[in-house]
Amino acid sequence: MHQGIVECVPNFSEGRNPQVIEKIVQSVVEAGCRVLDVSSDYSHHRSVLTFAGSPDKVEEAAFRAAGVAASLIDMEKHKGEHPRIGATDVIPFIPVRDITIEECVSLAERVGKRVGEQLGIPVYLYAKAARREDRVRLPNIRKGEYEGLKEAIQVDPLRKPDFGPSRLHPMAGATSVGARQPLIAYNVNLNTSDVKVARGIAKAIRESSGGLPSVQAKGILIDETGLAQVTMNLLDYRTTSIDLVLRRIEEEASARGTDIRDSEIIGLVPLDAILDVAASRMKAGSFSKGQLLDLVDFHKE
Amino acid sequence: MHQGIVECVPNFSEGRNPQVIEKIVQSVVEAGCRVLDVSSDYSHHRSVLTFAGSPDKVEEAAFRAAGVAASLIDMEKHKGEHPRIGATDVIPFIPVRDITIEECVSLAERVGKRVGEQLGIPVYLYAKAARREDRVRLPNIRKGEYEGLKEAIQVDPLRKPDFGPSRLHPMAGATSVGARQPLIAYNVNLNTSDVKVARGIAKAIRESSGGLPSVQAKGILIDETGLAQVTMNLLDYRTTSIDLVLRRIEEEASARGTDIRDSEIIGLVPLDAILDVAASRMKAGSFSKGQLLDLVDFHKE
Repeated sequence: MHQGIVECVPNFSEGRNPQVIEKIVQSVVEAGCRVLDVSSDYSHHRSVLTFAGSPDKVEEAAFRAAGVAASLIDMEKHKGEHPRIGATDVIPFIPVRDITIEECVSLAERVGKRVGEQLGIPVYLYAKAARREDRVRLPNIRKGEYEGLKEAIQVDPLRKPDFGPSRLHPMAGATSVGARQPLIAYNVNLNTSDVKVARGIAKAIRESSGGLPSVQAKGILIDETGLAQVTMNLLDYRTTSIDLVLRRIEEEASARGTDIRDSEIIGLVPLDAILDVAASRMKAGSFSKGQLLDLVDFHKE
Repeated sequence: MHQGIVECVPNFSEGRNPQVIEKIVQSVVEAGCRVLDVSSDYSHHRSVLTFAGSPDKVEEAAFRAAGVAASLIDMEKHKGEHPRIGATDVIPFIPVRDITIEECVSLAERVGKRVGEQLGIPVYLYAKAARREDRVRLPNIRKGEYEGLKEAIQVDPLRKPDFGPSRLHPMAGATSVGARQPLIAYNVNLNTSDVKVARGIAKAIRESSGGLPSVQAKGILIDETGLAQVTMNLLDYRTTSIDLVLRRIEEEASARGTDIRDSEIIGLVPLDAILDVAASRMKAGSFSKGQLLDLVDFHKE
């Protein structure tokens, strides 16, 4: 039996009805996985579930969760800020401990095949599991979103899924399944209700428009607070740190006459990424993880 | 056998000869303790050793280290920035895991008695182990330092030690032994060589002159860099955080026409204190330790 630990962070197109999310979580727990975090966002109308376990248990949990989501979430009725193609919009597998990215790619292929063939949901393999260059990045797969993909999947050979039928599931749409290194989902709220400011900052800092490497960013308006937000994925915090992102956003916000109100990390984050923020704030170049009292293994020789 | 873990952070008046520090470290290792950190400071002419273990092993290690220091460090020849009364200037015991502060007080009393009676070094019990109000704080015990204490200990009944003879050890001087909660030894270097600026800032922020609670601070000049430094002990980071200290120093430095060059944490620090710095920098009030990927116990139910 494989002793490694995989993390799985599926995103579901439901952020307003807690009962739906509860049933999805239940299916993951019943498959023997440990649920680490559940974040639901009303404005995005989207929930992010984080769970972990051995590869076989994670495979089963991811498959069951996609099945429950397909039976409870109707994409025909879904509206939300965040781009999406299906009820289970995306299922990434992430190596955490004693497991390789290649093993996570195999896991993505097994789950993708089952979701496609057994649930009848078209599946696109993405990131490290992508079989084509134009499916490495999710924005390409999500082009036109659920509504646009409905026709494109049937008529455009380039949109043919890697598994499952070449037509959207009537309720659940389509799903992206992949493998990737840990990313940091990070949102910065601005002291302005002008979404154009957030969009301008997002454009200035994201890699795809010539900004910071390994940063994905979008500007959106958060309904609950009425504030503009820069919502980001930091794909590699060793390449572009949280601190660097904050400094760039501070500059860009200042140039637009506003500033940062607060920020939030969604789900899990590697300790090193947070220690880097603290060390940068302190200008403490010599600080090391070995100085953390809580992490010392006193019984080790 | 007691399974708790005590940390011990003795300070020695030797920061320039690595061979002396090596012999002290060796005595601690031979007593069965785990050495966590050794920091030597040329300008302070002082070394801080951090080790941990079960109370019985820590007792033995602290006693042996004081003996080695007494045989190798001659206070008659010692000069340094940091106030001190002896070769082993101070021995604090700190509860780390499964042990109470009261047990650390008992440990301080046992070690103090042995150092006083067996090594002939006068010992003052301080902090939580203090038997008199005027010995809770080290600056009171260190009044006049080694040079001044030489006469005072013989003539002033208020300076009579808690253990050992009422005269300084001919080489090792005197030693303070006590118990306390974990503190953070934190130094901030300024972009100025004017030590008066550091002294002014230290005075503005330390508790004893009406500044921030639980903060001890002094302004000194660092020989190696030629820069002024605010050297601090943060006695309770939950009362006054690193972030608050930094903000106050930034304000005070700015008012004096300078700013912070860098900073350093000496020895160990509780993880919570560092996470607080990061969360403050990010303005991420919702951030919690449960989000740290590295700390998740995946096998726990």
